[in-house]
Amino acid sequence: MSFLERIHECNNARIDDYLPFYIEKEIVGWLRPAFAAALDQWPEVFTLEEQAVRLHPQLSDFKQRSDALDEVVRALIRRELIGHYLAESYAVTPGTREQARCLIDRGAVAQFGVRAFGQHINGYVRKEDGLYMWVGRRAMDRRLAPGKLDNFVAGGLPHGLSLQENLVKECHEEAGLDAQVAALARPAGMISYVAETANGVKPDVMYCYDIELPAHINPVCRDGEVESFTLMPVNEVAQIVEQTTEFKQNCNLVIIDFLIRHGVLGPEREDYIELCSRLRKPA
Amino acid sequence: MSFLERIHECNNARIDDYLPFYIEKEIVGWLRPAFAAALDQWPEVFTLEEQAVRLHPQLSDFKQRSDALDEVVRALIRRELIGHYLAESYAVTPGTREQARCLIDRGAVAQFGVRAFGQHINGYVRKEDGLYMWVGRRAMDRRLAPGKLDNFVAGGLPHGLSLQENLVKECHEEAGLDAQVAALARPAGMISYVAETANGVKPDVMYCYDIELPAHINPVCRDGEVESFTLMPVNEVAQIVEQTTEFKQNCNLVIIDFLIRHGVLGPEREDYIELCSRLRKPA
Repeated sequence: MSFLERIHECNNARIDDYLPFYIEKEIVGWLRPAFAAALDQWPEVFTLEEQAVRLHPQLSDFKQRSDALDEVVRALIRRELIGHYLAESYAVTPGTREQARCLIDRGAVAQFGVRAFGQHINGYVRKEDGLYMWVGRRAMDRRLAPGKLDNFVAGGLPHGLSLQENLVKECHEEAGLDAQVAALARPAGMISYVAETANGVKPDVMYCYDIELPAHINPVCRDGEVESFTLMPVNEVAQIVEQTTEFKQNCNLVIIDFLIRHGVLGPEREDYIELCSRLRKPA
Repeated sequence: MSFLERIHECNNARIDDYLPFYIEKEIVGWLRPAFAAALDQWPEVFTLEEQAVRLHPQLSDFKQRSDALDEVVRALIRRELIGHYLAESYAVTPGTREQARCLIDRGAVAQFGVRAFGQHINGYVRKEDGLYMWVGRRAMDRRLAPGKLDNFVAGGLPHGLSLQENLVKECHEEAGLDAQVAALARPAGMISYVAETANGVKPDVMYCYDIELPAHINPVCRDGEVESFTLMPVNEVAQIVEQTTEFKQNCNLVIIDFLIRHGVLGPEREDYIELCSRLRKPA
């Protein structure tokens, strides 16, 4: 077991097994061929080619495209080709959230291989004997990764909420922090990966933040996502990441990035260059 | 002018213009075709192929290889195909310093396109109104980047010195820090790039460190590399990096990495994903 294995686990997709999903001349997603074939029911929405799927060129503006995709997604849920409608709109984009070409429900993001964006926050406390990290245990009733360990606060970025708004919201919902404490969070970089999941591929970008918390603050989850929080010595967290798959998959990468930035993992490691380089996919 | 331009400037090499330099089955360097052609004088040291140069397979151990290369380098200096003998041994390696297959004089590293390793230290002071960074101005008599701005402390990693030994040595020589203060330095990641220079290609790895200095410490250069130090507000340093080429080229990347890790540059920037991803080459 190794830190590099945690990174590989999040980069297990073979993108050659997928068909690119185009809007005009830009790739905005990746589809499994079997899923792509099911889209032939909507010739007014998709153009199916041998090596690609294209959003129909007649759908030429943001709203037309979003409406057409939404109708398809709802139908695919009825046919059980997509699991659940989550009523949260995600950007469909060739690059960043700001470059969104239209929207799609969060529940269909993996099936369409659309890049999801999120914010993951490392909550830590500086004690005399070193750094401690707050680690959450996800509730058993979660659809995604029930019972797994989680970053202090982590959430997807829906369209239309600014980074700062979403950060304050997630800090409140997931850890019970008020806006004043949430304002202590500092951006510290990003990780990216291309993961194969049961539902499709996830070529995601997670923005990483650090929040140094005063020792007296005890996080309390308000939205039921996290069952309990534990404050652990940073070396214990590192050991869990290195030796187990206890953490929800992408949280491992956020922690490895934290461990590198704070010098817990240093350049005397033989795998250091590889660890550092593989936390982010080429842009 | 932009931060991305600074990164591009350090990644201006077209590796296709170079011939790979092999030791056994591993690539350990990259040569200009004209330089490679000059090596035909030493058929007992190099095997020249159309698309590659190989160290002669009869040179089968570390010392044999190092001695043979050293003799060639000294001869190439006499022929003015290499500038100067620097009497500092660098690793010739397909990966990390620990995987060195032999040694070569630092003066020949660019001509042979061998990966150089270095340590760059951001020295900073936390004041009430924010972060300040110590910036050095290189002496005008330096061979490399005279008069340019520089990181607080920066040095190449010769073979045979440990990371910690070299760090303490460089902190002493370049900033006059004693070992106790140097021990405050924390590893914080790495940057890598493939730069075209006058002498050849540099596919380098620089380990980045942060050292938070007490306000009363004034660095003093002891080895003549830096002429003077200035403590600058971090936003001023960011502006110099973004808008000028005042810094020695690779120092820009070390500072951009610092600005990202400390949240001075944040994910609301349109170029954030690209900035983060391009600071390191794929491993």
